[in-house]
Amino acid sequence: MAYTNRQWRLAARPVGMVKESDFELASEEIPGVAEGELLIRNLFLAFEPAQRGWIDDVESYVPPVQLGEVMRAGTVGQVIESKHPDFEKGQLVSGMFGWQEYYLTDGTPTAFGGVSRVPDGIPPQRVLSVLGATGMTAYFGIDEIHPVQEGDNVLVSGAAGATGSVAAQIARIRGAGKVVGIAGGPDKCRWLIEEAKLDAAIDYKNEDVRKRMREEFPGGVDLYFDNVGGDILDAALLAMAERGRITMCGGISGYNEATPPPGPSNIMQVVIKRLSVKGFILFDHVTNAGKAIADLAKWSASGEIAIEEDIQEGFENTPKTFLRLFEGKNLGKQLIKIADPE
Amino acid sequence: MAYTNRQWRLAARPVGMVKESDFELASEEIPGVAEGELLIRNLFLAFEPAQRGWIDDVESYVPPVQLGEVMRAGTVGQVIESKHPDFEKGQLVSGMFGWQEYYLTDGTPTAFGGVSRVPDGIPPQRVLSVLGATGMTAYFGIDEIHPVQEGDNVLVSGAAGATGSVAAQIARIRGAGKVVGIAGGPDKCRWLIEEAKLDAAIDYKNEDVRKRMREEFPGGVDLYFDNVGGDILDAALLAMAERGRITMCGGISGYNEATPPPGPSNIMQVVIKRLSVKGFILFDHVTNAGKAIADLAKWSASGEIAIEEDIQEGFENTPKTFLRLFEGKNLGKQLIKIADPE
Repeated sequence: MAYTNRQWRLAARPVGMVKESDFELASEEIPGVAEGELLIRNLFLAFEPAQRGWIDDVESYVPPVQLGEVMRAGTVGQVIESKHPDFEKGQLVSGMFGWQEYYLTDGTPTAFGGVSRVPDGIPPQRVLSVLGATGMTAYFGIDEIHPVQEGDNVLVSGAAGATGSVAAQIARIRGAGKVVGIAGGPDKCRWLIEEAKLDAAIDYKNEDVRKRMREEFPGGVDLYFDNVGGDILDAALLAMAERGRITMCGGISGYNEATPPPGPSNIMQVVIKRLSVKGFILFDHVTNAGKAIADLAKWSASGEIAIEEDIQEGFENTPKTFLRLFEGKNLGKQLIKIADPE
Repeated sequence: MAYTNRQWRLAARPVGMVKESDFELASEEIPGVAEGELLIRNLFLAFEPAQRGWIDDVESYVPPVQLGEVMRAGTVGQVIESKHPDFEKGQLVSGMFGWQEYYLTDGTPTAFGGVSRVPDGIPPQRVLSVLGATGMTAYFGIDEIHPVQEGDNVLVSGAAGATGSVAAQIARIRGAGKVVGIAGGPDKCRWLIEEAKLDAAIDYKNEDVRKRMREEFPGGVDLYFDNVGGDILDAALLAMAERGRITMCGGISGYNEATPPPGPSNIMQVVIKRLSVKGFILFDHVTNAGKAIADLAKWSASGEIAIEEDIQEGFENTPKTFLRLFEGKNLGKQLIKIADPE
């Protein structure tokens, strides 16, 4: 059987804020499935701020998406035809299958990974959120980069996002003394306190961030988990305790700047306060993915971690949904559902 | 016997670049030495970029010098009268005795230390340079913050300064594969290669720093020891190897800015390259001072470390000599000689 595979391809390198028109809707024909191949229909596509970096033509930890290529993204799908011995029709699978409706493969892993089975008994999109890249990023950031110490005063930015929300809750589970999240707007802040059970939330859109940091942490911040960079990182540097640790996970505030914005003016606090600042990338830690997923699955099943997924719908809305990340619209993991399983 | 003690006191808090007029020459009478006291005549005063931070009215790792107070500084002097059982006339001593000609004390340590004997057999000013704060800062920065690993590609900024020159040479001794220093002007760069035996030097005043970093380190910088901050730190972030380490010792480029200048635009390289960035302050490491001084004394005696001291003269020239640090005039440790020993 032949399929028409709609795809969102990179049409232009964004200059400054990414726009819907930086992507173009195209289609290709998939004539059929050959011996040894399987055909996957994507059900959910996942969005992450890091994807913004993948479409700039700069050297980074992964090669950039080329113009005309299908946009790279993690997805979950269903095997709808299989002539491959390891996969049967109906199986739910995940991988970096990109912004397209179908993905034809012989199962050989690419540079971005292979085809993974979705465990039974969980909503399939969960492997894109808490059990996926963002959840594992939070896990390794908290457990392996600057591990939480009992009683630590912990501050998390982007705390209502997919990574920050999980990081803040793992910090709580790991024995932090106090966990405060920074997010934009009262709805997100309410969620942080009522659902994620953080000790406090700072609304950076409506509050004086520096003042609120001082109020929440009169003795200083021991561990700052940063997803945003920019002014909030600058403020956090001033709020750090002596010998504090900063785990730099990302810097969404600068991802859509045509040229890198100025860095934190308070960088000398690193010397004055003897800080340790470390960056990390999930890819370096995937050998421990099994333990991460087991812990994350346990915590999300038991309710110790509150999970939020922001699920938009309709393949045609894919670029628009990506933009929600940079407009601060998503609460929790940004996903789009493009098909129902059979 | 009574003495007239000339002093340089802090007269104004500098706004932007420190000026000679931020200090005022004054004097006080020392009527005599009481039982249990000793009187020290300062011979050499030491200058360090960090002193610029001590005269700003901001919270830091030490309280600021107050207006009207004698400027805080490390000095070496000679006991010229003693009614104290532990010190005899003629003994050479060092401590934080400040910008003044005499220092009367009962030997009780202040918050900034006590009275230390200068070891026999070395030029006394050596305890202010390689065997003093700047030499020990270099030692602990290289050995304890991000220890040099065999074969490391090491970059040092402020490499012709008192700390940088020692740090770069210790990195060489500790087995670095390549050590490159950054300094201002051809004379300093020549010294780095011919005397300090570094592999290469980058003249930031006359060369394209980013291009030269790429040329010297095609595989990236494993360890960057930073004394300057600013644009050179920004350039170094781009030049780092994956999993590189940055030891932040200071940021002289920004010390005379009225408001903190923008930080490094390339700060996101910390994430992309999984860098570790750590700041430190000498005070935290002084319990290991004995080992540091023993090693530094051995290396400087054997010639493994080339020592440079820039010795100005005349107590009246003290503030002017301090300014040399920020004008980039000093090669090696900036000192002033204000008296000869008896």
